[in-house]
Amino acid sequence: MTSFPVHYSGPTLGEVGEHRAIEEIIAAAPSSRNGDDAAVLSHASPNSRGVATTDMLIQGRHFSLDWSRPEEIGMKAIVQNFADIEAMGARPIAALLAVSAPADTPLVIIRDIASGIASRVRDYSAELVGGDLTSGDELVLSVTAIGSLGGSHPALSLDRARFNQHVVAHGRLGWSAAGLALLKRYGRQEVPRQFAPLVDAHCAPYLNPGRGVVARATGATCMTDNSDGLVVDLSTIARRSAVGIDLFAAAIAPDPLLCGAAELLGADPWEWILAGGEDHTLLATTFGDPPSGFRAIGQVIRGQSVTIDGQAPRYGHGWVSF
Amino acid sequence: MTSFPVHYSGPTLGEVGEHRAIEEIIAAAPSSRNGDDAAVLSHASPNSRGVATTDMLIQGRHFSLDWSRPEEIGMKAIVQNFADIEAMGARPIAALLAVSAPADTPLVIIRDIASGIASRVRDYSAELVGGDLTSGDELVLSVTAIGSLGGSHPALSLDRARFNQHVVAHGRLGWSAAGLALLKRYGRQEVPRQFAPLVDAHCAPYLNPGRGVVARATGATCMTDNSDGLVVDLSTIARRSAVGIDLFAAAIAPDPLLCGAAELLGADPWEWILAGGEDHTLLATTFGDPPSGFRAIGQVIRGQSVTIDGQAPRYGHGWVSF
Repeated sequence: MTSFPVHYSGPTLGEVGEHRAIEEIIAAAPSSRNGDDAAVLSHASPNSRGVATTDMLIQGRHFSLDWSRPEEIGMKAIVQNFADIEAMGARPIAALLAVSAPADTPLVIIRDIASGIASRVRDYSAELVGGDLTSGDELVLSVTAIGSLGGSHPALSLDRARFNQHVVAHGRLGWSAAGLALLKRYGRQEVPRQFAPLVDAHCAPYLNPGRGVVARATGATCMTDNSDGLVVDLSTIARRSAVGIDLFAAAIAPDPLLCGAAELLGADPWEWILAGGEDHTLLATTFGDPPSGFRAIGQVIRGQSVTIDGQAPRYGHGWVSF
Repeated sequence: MTSFPVHYSGPTLGEVGEHRAIEEIIAAAPSSRNGDDAAVLSHASPNSRGVATTDMLIQGRHFSLDWSRPEEIGMKAIVQNFADIEAMGARPIAALLAVSAPADTPLVIIRDIASGIASRVRDYSAELVGGDLTSGDELVLSVTAIGSLGGSHPALSLDRARFNQHVVAHGRLGWSAAGLALLKRYGRQEVPRQFAPLVDAHCAPYLNPGRGVVARATGATCMTDNSDGLVVDLSTIARRSAVGIDLFAAAIAPDPLLCGAAELLGADPWEWILAGGEDHTLLATTFGDPPSGFRAIGQVIRGQSVTIDGQAPRYGHGWVSF
């Protein structure tokens, strides 16, 4: 049975009932498209294709209310799903939220998750267009993101990395894992102030919206996001594209903040960078200059594995569910 | 903690791991669109709009492995989501499946749920295009359906029932609730043979694909599906459209099979018909003749409530989650 931190008070879902709770969600994340059997999206632009992805988040496994505010959980749920849309070179346009929650869940938690979702979908000019709310033993969020892929050239797929392309990245590497390590050691309140950006990167990641569309428009061919771990996610590209990837150690080396956190915790910052995941940093390959907002971090080479300055990575194992 | 009927044997999710389990799901429900960060759907037809809906199903609340085969659970998850797409007058084109399951879940259960999904999406020429698999304490399925609404006239919304329209239905009424009542009394094996169609209606509902598109093309303006209960769902139309709805008792009266089950159980078949829900029968309003596959069951009148031959219904209370 889920339990909730004591500082979330007020009426519970069981007390207010399903209809009132749904009203609160819709008030927190309003959309004129919500409230019918299904949501009707905008007219598709000519020659466009829909893009869809889904992720499930479970309290105690994917997030903790001891560490994260409910708004942050909503924000993170959107960013991780929208990063998958962007990783196809598409524009996120809508999200759906299905929630299962125990009857003793404070209503304010669900409402604030919806507020966090609303704030992040607004960053993308997208909307929360529908959902479902039901009772269960665990707090489970299932977010689906829908995007639009304009124009007729291919999506940025995992199998289109080509020999001699640059490997480019938009976003931080290792910050989310460092933030998680700090939270595990100290709890949210006690993490030393200077490391707040790392904690924020874990609890409420942010990516500049639109980078996937920009990368596709300027010639990138392949993209993913750093969700399971840098080496794991790039290894997927390497395998699917039948190429090797060599990363430049200097381009992904830990910054002073990561080094400081690592020193404090007695950890190796390279583990966070190479195996951490959850940064949702966009990783792409392109023959041209890095697209706006991206920096070069490596090169597509012949081979079939991921190396760093030609060496096997010290850390490679990423997130697995079972 | 979820427990599983003993006759599901073989390796568990915890034993085979996430990757193997996902391979089994994809093998059971193949799609060339699956396997990247997000799924790219077909090119949208000119002037079309996307339509999306989601539903979450939890073991022990929305389905029971004691009563339903895993294939049936997959079938039902698709039909209830696709009925919501059809209820907009749209054509279902894709589904996504997020699953949370305990590590001791037999792999065969997940694979067979995917097989059931595959068989029903095929009925609609749709595909299971993506999903997520994670570990949790409960078996939770979250299905998202995506459809395409062609042409420029409006979707079949809840607020477009008009005075003097016919109320029409495609599908059975009360069969799902009767099947559930029989399962609760007898268990799957012991339900008398002649009532198998009622049990099937509960465990693996089926609707003729395409009825929503046909109804919209022939002039229907408003549609929903019977998911929470006939009176509850039509009351939503009445409230949102600011009309009354009078049902013809003779048109919705229990058929011999329902009467037989009611007699056996000492139940009132009208409760199943009026409050049962989960039939996913399509309910529409139109000025014209009933569209192909639909029958007239009532009339849109002035007022604000649902009546039966002018009388208040004996049963109205439907499904609520909390």
